[in-house]
Amino acid sequence: MPDGREYRATSVAGLPPLQEHGPLVDHKIPQDDVVQAQPDLTWSRIRHYMREPFAEFFGTFILIMFGDGVVAQVVLSNGENGDYQSISWGWGLGVMLGVYTSGISGAHLNPAVTFANCVFRKFPWRKLPIYLVAQTLGAFVASLVVYANYKSAIDVFEGGQNIRTVPGYSETATAGIFCTYPAPFMTRTGMFFSEFIASSLLMFLIYALKDDGNIGAGNLTPLGLFFIIFGIGACFGWETGYAINLARDFGPRVASYAVGYGSEVFEAGGYYFWIPMVAPFFGCTFGGWLYDMFMFTGESPVNTEAAGLLRLAKPTRKVWSNTYEEKHGHMA
Amino acid sequence: MPDGREYRATSVAGLPPLQEHGPLVDHKIPQDDVVQAQPDLTWSRIRHYMREPFAEFFGTFILIMFGDGVVAQVVLSNGENGDYQSISWGWGLGVMLGVYTSGISGAHLNPAVTFANCVFRKFPWRKLPIYLVAQTLGAFVASLVVYANYKSAIDVFEGGQNIRTVPGYSETATAGIFCTYPAPFMTRTGMFFSEFIASSLLMFLIYALKDDGNIGAGNLTPLGLFFIIFGIGACFGWETGYAINLARDFGPRVASYAVGYGSEVFEAGGYYFWIPMVAPFFGCTFGGWLYDMFMFTGESPVNTEAAGLLRLAKPTRKVWSNTYEEKHGHMA
Amino acid sequence: MPDGREYRATSVAGLPPLQEHGPLVDHKIPQDDVVQAQPDLTWSRIRHYMREPFAEFFGTFILIMFGDGVVAQVVLSNGENGDYQSISWGWGLGVMLGVYTSGISGAHLNPAVTFANCVFRKFPWRKLPIYLVAQTLGAFVASLVVYANYKSAIDVFEGGQNIRTVPGYSETATAGIFCTYPAPFMTRTGMFFSEFIASSLLMFLIYALKDDGNIGAGNLTPLGLFFIIFGIGACFGWETGYAINLARDFGPRVASYAVGYGSEVFEAGGYYFWIPMVAPFFGCTFGGWLYDMFMFTGESPVNTEAAGLLRLAKPTRKVWSNTYEEKHGHMA
Amino acid sequence: MPDGREYRATSVAGLPPLQEHGPLVDHKIPQDDVVQAQPDLTWSRIRHYMREPFAEFFGTFILIMFGDGVVAQVVLSNGENGDYQSISWGWGLGVMLGVYTSGISGAHLNPAVTFANCVFRKFPWRKLPIYLVAQTLGAFVASLVVYANYKSAIDVFEGGQNIRTVPGYSETATAGIFCTYPAPFMTRTGMFFSEFIASSLLMFLIYALKDDGNIGAGNLTPLGLFFIIFGIGACFGWETGYAINLARDFGPRVASYAVGYGSEVFEAGGYYFWIPMVAPFFGCTFGGWLYDMFMFTGESPVNTEAAGLLRLAKPTRKVWSNTYEEKHGHMA
Repeated sequence: MPDGREYRATSVAGLPPLQEHGPLVDHKIPQDDVVQAQPDLTWSRIRHYMREPFAEFFGTFILIMFGDGVVAQVVLSNGENGDYQSISWGWGLGVMLGVYTSGISGAHLNPAVTFANCVFRKFPWRKLPIYLVAQTLGAFVASLVVYANYKSAIDVFEGGQNIRTVPGYSETATAGIFCTYPAPFMTRTGMFFSEFIASSLLMFLIYALKDDGNIGAGNLTPLGLFFIIFGIGACFGWETGYAINLARDFGPRVASYAVGYGSEVFEAGGYYFWIPMVAPFFGCTFGGWLYDMFMFTGESPVNTEAAGLLRLAKPTRKVWSNTYEEKHGHMA
Repeated sequence: MPDGREYRATSVAGLPPLQEHGPLVDHKIPQDDVVQAQPDLTWSRIRHYMREPFAEFFGTFILIMFGDGVVAQVVLSNGENGDYQSISWGWGLGVMLGVYTSGISGAHLNPAVTFANCVFRKFPWRKLPIYLVAQTLGAFVASLVVYANYKSAIDVFEGGQNIRTVPGYSETATAGIFCTYPAPFMTRTGMFFSEFIASSLLMFLIYALKDDGNIGAGNLTPLGLFFIIFGIGACFGWETGYAINLARDFGPRVASYAVGYGSEVFEAGGYYFWIPMVAPFFGCTFGGWLYDMFMFTGESPVNTEAAGLLRLAKPTRKVWSNTYEEKHGHMA
Repeated sequence: MPDGREYRATSVAGLPPLQEHGPLVDHKIPQDDVVQAQPDLTWSRIRHYMREPFAEFFGTFILIMFGDGVVAQVVLSNGENGDYQSISWGWGLGVMLGVYTSGISGAHLNPAVTFANCVFRKFPWRKLPIYLVAQTLGAFVASLVVYANYKSAIDVFEGGQNIRTVPGYSETATAGIFCTYPAPFMTRTGMFFSEFIASSLLMFLIYALKDDGNIGAGNLTPLGLFFIIFGIGACFGWETGYAINLARDFGPRVASYAVGYGSEVFEAGGYYFWIPMVAPFFGCTFGGWLYDMFMFTGESPVNTEAAGLLRLAKPTRKVWSNTYEEKHGHMA
Repeated sequence: MPDGREYRATSVAGLPPLQEHGPLVDHKIPQDDVVQAQPDLTWSRIRHYMREPFAEFFGTFILIMFGDGVVAQVVLSNGENGDYQSISWGWGLGVMLGVYTSGISGAHLNPAVTFANCVFRKFPWRKLPIYLVAQTLGAFVASLVVYANYKSAIDVFEGGQNIRTVPGYSETATAGIFCTYPAPFMTRTGMFFSEFIASSLLMFLIYALKDDGNIGAGNLTPLGLFFIIFGIGACFGWETGYAINLARDFGPRVASYAVGYGSEVFEAGGYYFWIPMVAPFFGCTFGGWLYDMFMFTGESPVNTEAAGLLRLAKPTRKVWSNTYEEKHGHMA
């Protein structure tokens, strides 16, 4: 497990991750206020090591509960208990409340945000897979809970207990509750571009909200996230459903496959499913680069020689590891 | 009456309950700035003892004024002066303004929240019935005021002064203004599950907003409650009407019975009325447990030996009373 | 002109009125930072005396610009550029932005709020008529600007340049843009009750937001006002149009009479026009009393002997003047 | 390039512009934390000089991404994925997030706001053309990105890849996505008046939010801007589309001409295009004057002899330059 001291990632959550408490590599459990009053308890010890994955799991869980929940309510009630605006609200406040839930881990809630933090904000690379798995699992489980909650209504809407259909294959499809499917007129390039643009906006604006050299949103950051997500949904949500997040899209997609929506969940839109998995990584990286290149004056690879591009030619651990210095001494 | 010092309940309201003022068991009235400049006044003395029930009464009163009020306006104007979104707004801001009203008592506004605070946050058990009664009375009285205000419009909508009908029994039913009735396709299990899920989300998120070891919403907590309630309404409000609160549902239900809606208010949906009374206690307890188990590092029974489960086997006052230590000395 | 020191009114605006600057009765102009760098300028001197009326004028002006403006846009565009929700938004943010404009004077924006502050918060009685006039004039002028802005659209909607009609007298009436008219099914008692209830909620909640012995909304108070007004509009706005304010209703009503809507603006709804002039004074006084009686522990006549009722039997200056003590020495 | 010390403009953004770092006229690069750790880097040096134009460029870019984006989504989806309310949301949050982006430069985002700051808040006149160009370019580029993103959908809506039409010339016009076109019933005077009124409100309220002698919105200023823009859209947005901003309207108009909408983008509405270029300068100046004349007690030309009107008769550099004193010594 990584040393808690080693990163200074920009957390979405407006607060730095809780300071970690001493070198865990020594296999000692620190006796402080974060670990319980009774640190000898097995569960407290487990939880101490698992705090960040737990936080990402539950943060993404909350996000999908509200996000998939609102789509379910709007679709299944035929718009009687909500409309497109409700969907903007649901995803916006889902992210906001997910951020409040997962401040401990930096509230990434999105593998592409974690990736951009690795590239631009010294977040440790080896945490990337852990975060990705926790986020995707959180989304997977939440979408199953939403499915269980709306099962009767889905039966009524689809016309039977064994009928589960995907947009483009049926007029009464409900798979769109769980993950995104593109509008029929979109080209492949257009789909990628739409997800790319929306992800770039997301990352650019997260870095803007978090930049103390700019205005900085401070304790209003979770509220700022509400407006960002609401805005992306209202302005760039129609064409591809603004997944902008591997965990948010792939987790529930697998869940919908598991409960019986069939292989169409992957085949629909010309195997569209990989676009919301891949495009956000490019988009968030570009958005983060754009902010750092033109606006950010803090510590960033972009603010080094040749705008950090020389790094691309030096794929060594010494250059790329965000934790190298702590382990091997300062490079000066 | 209980000693005001004895609890450290997590109040919804973003602020701790007002510090109490000395041991009331001594039957002395403390002479400080919270009790009036003239503490000898009979009313000041009564009010001092009654501050918490008054606060819960008026907080829930405000909640129901806006909550039942918005449903009345939307239903009775046939959607011309509001739609489903308005209902999410009304309940969301009703809770927010109710919280601002009742900070003195911790702004529970919901017996299940009070119960979870007893279990997880050392809120004194003996205050539970007092809070429950004050909350339910506040909701009862508010729904009568809403009824009085909209009486003419109800007469027009129902088709006569003596016609008062309940959803499922009539096309022009108005009983749904006051308390919740389930959607017709719901199974009994589905009803319970829906209320359980929504209550769990409520409690989990209240504890997240209030956790200073996490981000913590601070003075934005009432606004955070607005988003939580808005979200539950937009995402999980269709199937059962998201009562998630005995006081909110039972108080107005009795009021609607009292003004002549007939015994159908209890019989509808297969005697549905008990579900929003019972499920929130299970849901809020589960949601609180979930947060404490996986996220919370502060003082909680879950953060004791065997995750607090041993307590279940020891139903003694010494173990369960949240006020035992203060009375009998610290247990060490 | 009154001495600026003499009141401690609860301002809506979250901040105390600017401290006044020395005894104006000495006819000296204080040389400080509030009066200009060049206090000898005639205009600076005039403005210093007129600051509070100016602030109330412009605060109410802003309120009516947005409030009447949104109704104009929704009505005249046949709901294509807004719906009932927009109206809740417009009035809510109109009050919020009006409060930001008029913090200097306490941001009352409503004669009934000023009146309640005189009764419960020691606001000087002799400022009441000044405030009432400034507020009503602000509303009057703003509604004329809205009229000028939407004149072409009104001509199109009414069907001609000389046609101006009032709700209840025509299908294409536009007088409802400027002031309120009751729904046709309302009884006289119902009208009064509806305005009374809404005004009570307004004042009760303003005092709750402002009570530092409760949670207190602090710098979020203007935002809290947005939610209060939005809520009153969404929950109690249909029956009478929630004027809850003499200035907001009477000023624009006279303006609409002046531009040619005819005497029907006063006759409509059985001479309804007096109800939104009178009911808010009763409602705000009741709401303020309710808060002080059951919740407030600060300085208030209600928190004196016999809950302040003895005052009603002693209509003397010594008892009722909020500025008596400063002039005649402390009564002890 | 101007000396960074020389202005105290009221920035929209709630924070003063970053303190500049020594006299740039000396051609030295200051070695501090704003310039990078490696100030010798060419790019850091370029960026240091270009920080303000970059900030205005990206701030306006963000504004138009969300603003034009939401209109595109609402129009092209035939209102299925948004309605008029969404448009109010999109522009409101576009401004809010643009302000968070461009705090470095004062977050003007609008040449008329920059102009008013030159007149009333000592913002250096020579920065006006730089800001105007940066803002207009940001809007121009953003509208091209929106066009690229929605190209397929525009093809479908217009009926072909080569068909691009302007409101008033076609039933399926899409040029209204990018810039504003007036409602058909408007007179020339009415158009100008509507833009004038809305711009006056904008500037008056910005100065109100920023006035620390009033309540002042502090760190809630970006949120306050959201409400101002939402309000102008909901209350004064129908007649002319509330451009109230040369950059917001002219940049995208040229972009729409460049991608093939034809000369009708300028000819429509009787060569309407110049009105949103000119009227905001008059409106913002009037709104700023109104606030300073009646409400503001800080430093402003209005708060000098004869309310600053004598300045109009003295068009000398000594009187009008906001940077004269710093260069030539204090005039005393």
